[in-house]
Amino acid sequence: MKAYVYQEKISLKDLRLVERPDPTPGQHDIVLRMRAASLNYRDIAIERGNYHIQVAPPLVPLSDGAGEVIAVGAKVNRFRIGDLACPLYLPDWIDGPVSSRMARRRLGGPTDGVLTEMMCLNEEEAVRVPSHLDPVEAASLPVSALTAWNSLYRIGTVLPGDTVLVQGSGGISTAALQFARAGGAKAIAVLRDDRHEAAYRQLGAAEVLTNGSAADWPRDVLKLTGGVDVALNVAGGDTLGQSITATRVGGKVHLVGYASNTVAGFDIFEAIRRATTIHIATAGNRATFEAMLRMIELHTIKPAIARTFPADQIVGAFEYLQRGGHFGKVVMTF
Amino acid sequence: MKAYVYQEKISLKDLRLVERPDPTPGQHDIVLRMRAASLNYRDIAIERGNYHIQVAPPLVPLSDGAGEVIAVGAKVNRFRIGDLACPLYLPDWIDGPVSSRMARRRLGGPTDGVLTEMMCLNEEEAVRVPSHLDPVEAASLPVSALTAWNSLYRIGTVLPGDTVLVQGSGGISTAALQFARAGGAKAIAVLRDDRHEAAYRQLGAAEVLTNGSAADWPRDVLKLTGGVDVALNVAGGDTLGQSITATRVGGKVHLVGYASNTVAGFDIFEAIRRATTIHIATAGNRATFEAMLRMIELHTIKPAIARTFPADQIVGAFEYLQRGGHFGKVVMTF
Amino acid sequence: MKAYVYQEKISLKDLRLVERPDPTPGQHDIVLRMRAASLNYRDIAIERGNYHIQVAPPLVPLSDGAGEVIAVGAKVNRFRIGDLACPLYLPDWIDGPVSSRMARRRLGGPTDGVLTEMMCLNEEEAVRVPSHLDPVEAASLPVSALTAWNSLYRIGTVLPGDTVLVQGSGGISTAALQFARAGGAKAIAVLRDDRHEAAYRQLGAAEVLTNGSAADWPRDVLKLTGGVDVALNVAGGDTLGQSITATRVGGKVHLVGYASNTVAGFDIFEAIRRATTIHIATAGNRATFEAMLRMIELHTIKPAIARTFPADQIVGAFEYLQRGGHFGKVVMTF
Amino acid sequence: MKAYVYQEKISLKDLRLVERPDPTPGQHDIVLRMRAASLNYRDIAIERGNYHIQVAPPLVPLSDGAGEVIAVGAKVNRFRIGDLACPLYLPDWIDGPVSSRMARRRLGGPTDGVLTEMMCLNEEEAVRVPSHLDPVEAASLPVSALTAWNSLYRIGTVLPGDTVLVQGSGGISTAALQFARAGGAKAIAVLRDDRHEAAYRQLGAAEVLTNGSAADWPRDVLKLTGGVDVALNVAGGDTLGQSITATRVGGKVHLVGYASNTVAGFDIFEAIRRATTIHIATAGNRATFEAMLRMIELHTIKPAIARTFPADQIVGAFEYLQRGGHFGKVVMTF
Repeated sequence: MKAYVYQEKISLKDLRLVERPDPTPGQHDIVLRMRAASLNYRDIAIERGNYHIQVAPPLVPLSDGAGEVIAVGAKVNRFRIGDLACPLYLPDWIDGPVSSRMARRRLGGPTDGVLTEMMCLNEEEAVRVPSHLDPVEAASLPVSALTAWNSLYRIGTVLPGDTVLVQGSGGISTAALQFARAGGAKAIAVLRDDRHEAAYRQLGAAEVLTNGSAADWPRDVLKLTGGVDVALNVAGGDTLGQSITATRVGGKVHLVGYASNTVAGFDIFEAIRRATTIHIATAGNRATFEAMLRMIELHTIKPAIARTFPADQIVGAFEYLQRGGHFGKVVMTF
Repeated sequence: MKAYVYQEKISLKDLRLVERPDPTPGQHDIVLRMRAASLNYRDIAIERGNYHIQVAPPLVPLSDGAGEVIAVGAKVNRFRIGDLACPLYLPDWIDGPVSSRMARRRLGGPTDGVLTEMMCLNEEEAVRVPSHLDPVEAASLPVSALTAWNSLYRIGTVLPGDTVLVQGSGGISTAALQFARAGGAKAIAVLRDDRHEAAYRQLGAAEVLTNGSAADWPRDVLKLTGGVDVALNVAGGDTLGQSITATRVGGKVHLVGYASNTVAGFDIFEAIRRATTIHIATAGNRATFEAMLRMIELHTIKPAIARTFPADQIVGAFEYLQRGGHFGKVVMTF
Repeated sequence: MKAYVYQEKISLKDLRLVERPDPTPGQHDIVLRMRAASLNYRDIAIERGNYHIQVAPPLVPLSDGAGEVIAVGAKVNRFRIGDLACPLYLPDWIDGPVSSRMARRRLGGPTDGVLTEMMCLNEEEAVRVPSHLDPVEAASLPVSALTAWNSLYRIGTVLPGDTVLVQGSGGISTAALQFARAGGAKAIAVLRDDRHEAAYRQLGAAEVLTNGSAADWPRDVLKLTGGVDVALNVAGGDTLGQSITATRVGGKVHLVGYASNTVAGFDIFEAIRRATTIHIATAGNRATFEAMLRMIELHTIKPAIARTFPADQIVGAFEYLQRGGHFGKVVMTF
Repeated sequence: MKAYVYQEKISLKDLRLVERPDPTPGQHDIVLRMRAASLNYRDIAIERGNYHIQVAPPLVPLSDGAGEVIAVGAKVNRFRIGDLACPLYLPDWIDGPVSSRMARRRLGGPTDGVLTEMMCLNEEEAVRVPSHLDPVEAASLPVSALTAWNSLYRIGTVLPGDTVLVQGSGGISTAALQFARAGGAKAIAVLRDDRHEAAYRQLGAAEVLTNGSAADWPRDVLKLTGGVDVALNVAGGDTLGQSITATRVGGKVHLVGYASNTVAGFDIFEAIRRATTIHIATAGNRATFEAMLRMIELHTIKPAIARTFPADQIVGAFEYLQRGGHFGKVVMTF
């Protein structure tokens, strides 16, 4: 089988398509033929060398993938041949709150990721995907959709009738808007321009603000809503303070990204006045992933896909993600 | 103004339409011209003398009503003339968990209820109703819909993708089914026969079981769902054990009624095996009421009304409720 | 090595001390030389054939044990030789809420238990015991102390200043009283007579009621406390209703045993008036076990041991437990 | 009666002792003869004109006080003459989460505060103080102790065996350390020097770090504890990031002050790696206040008082608080 590998250095310039031995599953293992893989800002940070944990070559990149089960060990009972499956980004985080031990292995760095023809893994380290999703859609889920779901429904608890605000049009935000809607909330998006306004409305946004580059957009949110119950922040930096200002008293902000700056700042008085809670967390455990899939299946949700690239155009895909301004996930296909 | 009053005894035979002085609102009061009032089993239990708290005549009956604001005190700022409003069943329970002090005053007994031409109350003791609801629909909300909402979303936390089971077709159950659907859950009803199957499906039920009088209906629920996340029980008695059996491991049962028996029983092993939680609670605080109304407004939910009766046919309305088998709430109109 | 085994039937009359091959640890396994094992009502129910899950011979009995690590596999990193360890009663329940899959394997039935000279188990399926505990004390923890801790601090959340009521003087109740005290709560015990009043006071009970066989003891609790925040019920049957009556409005009852009757009953009005929550659950996951041990270590808590029996006097130990009236856990030593 | 009033400007230079008419209680009112009042940083911020809400003269300063009930209205039932009582800092926040409406009236600005001979208030707007506390101790509770309790036990849930870190030796931190201990947690303090090390140990601190002015003190906390479960931050600015670094994965930071800077900043990667939750909130509702008092009474807790000043030395008291470095609360006496 073939795999993309950062050989000597963690750099796209050093990414090679190499031959590796075909995997033989142990008794509890499954083998996946990978069909698609999606990109996250994490992948860019790792490639640029400014990710927060040490990552060393050789390494198969990318955390998010989907593949078809083509072999199962003798004792496997969670999967059958032919199932579409997603490997867990954090293979050791099965249930309960995360611990440092559970967050050690991470696909795409430091652990080998999903940009490979085949993956062999313990059957506990993957989830089965609902049948209405194709591999490209499935590959969009493990990090960003799960981060959105975990934020809205595990850490926070969005209730029907609540108002949820998302920022920008990346994979976490588009998933969060869909999930908020599925849970009966009113969903609002704030964008830097009107390019994706129509797309967001089609996804179910009740309101789309297009002045996200102006500093005072939170005022417009306050006017519209009196303060949202939950705001997702994917940009960090000073925008954290803006998200806080846009929430109601007792509101929650989920800080799940760092697209603008990896340092976050906010005015304490503004937060005290609102009794704000800020949750900083990404991904989620397997039980949460399965709860999300149950909902995705019940509501036949189709994730927003910005664009697909063949695997050999990964450099172009990284550039495309880096430029920003897309709507949904960027996915590689094999 | 006129009011219905249990004069000498708490008995329909002693219910009189009496003249009372028109109310004059204090600075913080509002006056409602009542338009509709709905019945609860509680009203039957009180009339029969087997309710759990002491109730003495003279007493205006009924807990659930809706009326138009026709006068406001000088310092009122929560209401304006012309608003449609529902008095709180528990006027002193504004927010937070209930306490015995907050549960002392209860409309319809021991405190004067809503079957009266006018009510004068502190503006804090009522909520404003969304404009898509008429007085009959509004009058169905204060006890049974609020009990349903409080159970699903305050005490328990139904998530999108969860499965919720309701029992029978009374006001709590029909409201719970609508609210579960609005929150993105899969909703299932179990009935004694197929009379209201179509009505439930129209309300959004994913499945309707019609063998609720057989002891083994929980088995069918388990086959269909693997065990529901949340079961509402409105009948008490031995049916509590059936509700437990129908839930998944870690599931929740909300015991909110006593239509079959005011004593409840269940097998402990069955509950231990499922790590069941049983919540026994009715109604909810004002903040919860307002959260429910926000959701009802966003989703333009219309409560199921079984039948309306003019106020002077209250004896017939009590009989109709007592017979059971209706779909939704029984409402009196003025 | 030797092990006690229900050979042909699950009956003390058929319990044999048999020779089994010494275990060889796999790479992730540890071998324990068992030092002590404690009894639970569960063991009696299994032996009498009225436990709620199917259990078949041959079977090593007992769920709760402690042993010394005498061998470790090459990849073990949670334990070292010489550690005192407790096997998990539910070896597959590591974290998060329980599921039916996690509750399948149970030591002492249907899975082989701890009444054996040696046990070999995956290192994930045991916890290390704080050094101030001896094997007898450690063996008292896995089911009953964990049930107490899980009830008070995972399912419920006892706060300092709360009042907690325990019933009787068995292993769950004595542990719950100690844990409630360690968390800064006021702890009260209700007993059938005054035999263990002094022992309970020494453990830290603020009050000990000795009229537990009279039906109206809850009235005394109400007089003393205005209603407790949390009541532990270990007897089931009609005593569940008594526990409910003894709680405050908004209080919690943890039903964790069935010493009096495996069917539980209560008056619904009594529970509605109190907005009671009833949790029915036993044991807990490994993360909860470790949290409990952290607290036991910080507070140097020593579990109450009623009496120890040599392993070959197990028939006497079962009789002793069955008679009831002891204070703390009944433990076998090897 | 006499009251201190910011007459024309909110400035200590403009603070006057003026004669006001003696209050006459309404039917639901109580009159307090104030005995003591304590200072908060809030009072300094208000006096300097950089508090986050508009405050206008004339204004009686200070939020925290205690007084003796000297008169009660005819319908008062929560208090009797002779009781020691604390007015609520936020008189409208009785229970449940805070709302903007509930946070409008605030003693000490914009609402008249406690530095006055007598206060007349609705009986709902005060709490009765346990008898082991004197007026000086009682006056230390309404803002800072309640902030500590609310953070540890309402927003967060400290469990026995958890580790709690406090910062500095002001009123919130000393109270938090006492409350963490009462709840069975291990409590650690980080100070800028060793001046109050002994005092903290006497209060029950398990560890006292004295290198709080060095940037790398969080490393020492990690070495000692592996990461604390809960960190209280009272300084804001960059110290928020330090508090985050000192917590375990899944830990909580309560940001409750702004002694160093009213803007807070932190590294997002550091927080993502820890899945940190940051709660920014001060004070608490009356139900929470009463829960705190129940615990203070059960454990006979005596708040740490740094120093008392006669009311006419308020300028000195402000200077003393501003200098910092004291241990506990600064209290004025009448």
